[in-house]
Amino acid sequence: MRDVFQQELAEVQERLVDIANHVVVSIEAAVRAFGDSNVQLAEQVIATDPVIDDKAASLDELAIDIIARQSPVARDLRIVVSALRISASLERMGDLARHIALLARYRFPMQVVPESLQPTFAEMGANDIEIAKMLRDLLSTQDMTLAERLQTADEHVDKLHRDVFAHVLGTSWEGAAHTTVDATLASRYHERFADHAVGIAKKVQYLATGDWVGDDDAHAEGAPEPVQPTGD
Amino acid sequence: MRDVFQQELAEVQERLVDIANHVVVSIEAAVRAFGDSNVQLAEQVIATDPVIDDKAASLDELAIDIIARQSPVARDLRIVVSALRISASLERMGDLARHIALLARYRFPMQVVPESLQPTFAEMGANDIEIAKMLRDLLSTQDMTLAERLQTADEHVDKLHRDVFAHVLGTSWEGAAHTTVDATLASRYHERFADHAVGIAKKVQYLATGDWVGDDDAHAEGAPEPVQPTGD
Repeated sequence: MRDVFQQELAEVQERLVDIANHVVVSIEAAVRAFGDSNVQLAEQVIATDPVIDDKAASLDELAIDIIARQSPVARDLRIVVSALRISASLERMGDLARHIALLARYRFPMQVVPESLQPTFAEMGANDIEIAKMLRDLLSTQDMTLAERLQTADEHVDKLHRDVFAHVLGTSWEGAAHTTVDATLASRYHERFADHAVGIAKKVQYLATGDWVGDDDAHAEGAPEPVQPTGD
Repeated sequence: MRDVFQQELAEVQERLVDIANHVVVSIEAAVRAFGDSNVQLAEQVIATDPVIDDKAASLDELAIDIIARQSPVARDLRIVVSALRISASLERMGDLARHIALLARYRFPMQVVPESLQPTFAEMGANDIEIAKMLRDLLSTQDMTLAERLQTADEHVDKLHRDVFAHVLGTSWEGAAHTTVDATLASRYHERFADHAVGIAKKVQYLATGDWVGDDDAHAEGAPEPVQPTGD
């Protein structure tokens, strides 16, 4: 029985890695579509997002089935519950990649953001890709140094997110309202993508260390936007 | 054993209703803080959000404990797993109320959005409050007519969300970049708040009807922002 359970856990892990790999492919394509105004790539991200959704739903069914058949308790149960939560976050990361691709498609053949913001978004995108890859490898190897590097990369994304706002709210900004809207949303999607990865990494850390992390730790909730106070 | 389980399920339900009631209080205060530029109310929402987080975490512990001790299967198991997901969504709704309050606090003593947008936001806020109340009552009574009314109200919020963008992207918009950013984020927070409620309502419908709804149905993922295509 125990062996069967371990095999099933291995299957759950394998599937999480597979979904994470799909997220890597999606965010890579979304970032390129966004940066290069490549509408074909954007379409591809949009069209393949349901694959991630289906895989996540199917993993959830497996996890619930394992709980029902194996009646795991203590740490074993928390591992399976964590898998349910991780799959939900991965699915959401796929959605955020799709949101980035949707912006690229809407604005095609124009760029979503003006030239002055493109280096910042390119860097944010590169970090999101790196974060997705580290997350996939973390799920595959449980190498905790990846969790730490991932969190460092997320802090950098947060900084870039603040940079976008500082630029948009600065005196040199001449973007039209739709450009301001797009930059705001695009920056938020990039930042939330990284936040979800951090939330997952914390859950994996639990699986390795036993320190349980709730479903929605403060960080994964997303920092408030760095709008600049004009009063008080 | 079965009776104990039913009692424990009743306890889970009671706690979900309690958390939903806290979300009602938060969104009511956040909407008033936002509309009236009331910084004390905003502070109150921000200060009390951790109460919702703690209650959600504590409910999660109870749900996991119930699964471990009672080894529920089939529908019973799905009910408890649904409770875990509902608590995560309620917690996120609390965060979104906090985000709205943070915007109000940042801009105090000014209004977050200009006069031309205030009626739209007032209506969106009133709908979010109604939605939160219907959700609380739905969790308490399982009255499925509430789930339907809630979804209708969410569609109205989606429409208002599009109205905000149409206004911001229209020719009459003269808002500064920071106002455009604030209106974009505020509208998204209001819209996501309602989306999460719909996601929860669908899970409650499952509990009543047996039609299982995955963790992140398409709607709860949030429609892409209604940016206006300028290309293709």
